[in-house]
Amino acid sequence: MSAAPAPRAVVLLSGGMDSATAAALAQRSGYEVSALVVDYGQRQQAERAAARAVAAALGLASVREVAVDLGAIGGSALTQADVPVPKDRSDAQIGAGVPPTYVPARNTLLLSLGLGLAEVLGAARVVIGANAVDTSGYPDCRPEFLEAFDRLAELGTRAGAAGRAPRVWAPLLTWSKARIVTCGLELGVPFELTLSCYDPVPTPGAGAAHCGRCDACRLRRRGFEGAGASDPAPWVGPARGG
Amino acid sequence: MSAAPAPRAVVLLSGGMDSATAAALAQRSGYEVSALVVDYGQRQQAERAAARAVAAALGLASVREVAVDLGAIGGSALTQADVPVPKDRSDAQIGAGVPPTYVPARNTLLLSLGLGLAEVLGAARVVIGANAVDTSGYPDCRPEFLEAFDRLAELGTRAGAAGRAPRVWAPLLTWSKARIVTCGLELGVPFELTLSCYDPVPTPGAGAAHCGRCDACRLRRRGFEGAGASDPAPWVGPARGG
Repeated sequence: MSAAPAPRAVVLLSGGMDSATAAALAQRSGYEVSALVVDYGQRQQAERAAARAVAAALGLASVREVAVDLGAIGGSALTQADVPVPKDRSDAQIGAGVPPTYVPARNTLLLSLGLGLAEVLGAARVVIGANAVDTSGYPDCRPEFLEAFDRLAELGTRAGAAGRAPRVWAPLLTWSKARIVTCGLELGVPFELTLSCYDPVPTPGAGAAHCGRCDACRLRRRGFEGAGASDPAPWVGPARGG
Repeated sequence: MSAAPAPRAVVLLSGGMDSATAAALAQRSGYEVSALVVDYGQRQQAERAAARAVAAALGLASVREVAVDLGAIGGSALTQADVPVPKDRSDAQIGAGVPPTYVPARNTLLLSLGLGLAEVLGAARVVIGANAVDTSGYPDCRPEFLEAFDRLAELGTRAGAAGRAPRVWAPLLTWSKARIVTCGLELGVPFELTLSCYDPVPTPGAGAAHCGRCDACRLRRRGFEGAGASDPAPWVGPARGG
């Protein structure tokens, strides 16, 4: 008698610490995990390289890359060179309102690409590292948004018509950044390969370093500090947790 | 006293007859219409050229093009060269089940791109030429799917957080192809520039002609026949309506 094949999951892998931890969690939960890396015209291509490195280190089943030129749509500091990434914002500023790094309809787009690949692979889950606690006001990281996407997937796919719609799984949605770091360290997530920064600084040979000043860097630092851990990834500027 | 500015709409323009008619309807309804042309790795690039020609002929306010490489995801005859486009299917075959030309999560993806541009432009509507009557079993052309997308837009966008989420408008959803042709002719839609074919045949100089044998050609022919009109677009093979 042979063992049943592992159920499949597609993880939206960004190169950051959250999606790397979500991928490791999906593996630990018994899924055969394939990565989807979406290049949506981010300023820095370093995060795609980080995503590929994380996928290799975790031994994911496959990695596919899809390019979407969101620069043609614009509207975000992450896809338009003429919109500055905010720096040195306070916690209160980070927590208030939708920031200029919001990419219009980004998670809707990422999830729809993940849903498409999940259909093709026969995967039961689309895993996203979305996080509603420490994030800075992105409307498309909220639980009710993700539930609405599940409904869309049931109605709008061939798999859904057969009662097998892939479901979104956002295991980190309600976690603090500190809990994500703690869990990731337990799972052996290669945090040294991850890159969270919105505006990373090129480094000679080694790729890119965290700027230490954008919202994403501040949230990441807080996570490592909260977990009492040292961040193994490259940084410029201020010290980093631990 | 100056007149109020026209409300804005983003139309997903494919180059086919349905989206061209939807764009003209949105104009007639008083919207300032901008086109979003998505290149999702279709086999034939002729439909992008058709979309640009239609946008110019209708005098749309702007045209933006976004490329998404769905070939990396696969799963469809429209994005994979090794999956054949079905030809010469009967009406019963066209009406039964989800065909190999189904692109996984396509309308979810197209609508999310339209939603992003609508947010950036401050548009009130995302117009899609989806049609649930004469189509051949695409789950993402059903009314309940589009309603679920509206819910997603309310929850997942900055505009939605401000109570101004763009809404999907699918004016042709319940129309027959014959009604679409009749309406388009009344509105002056340049059908001679549109291209509906899944597998168009290159023609010397003039671009591409309808193959006459794929599902899309058969539905288009039926529409012109039902409207008692002659199709002004180029075709190869069998006669075409009128």
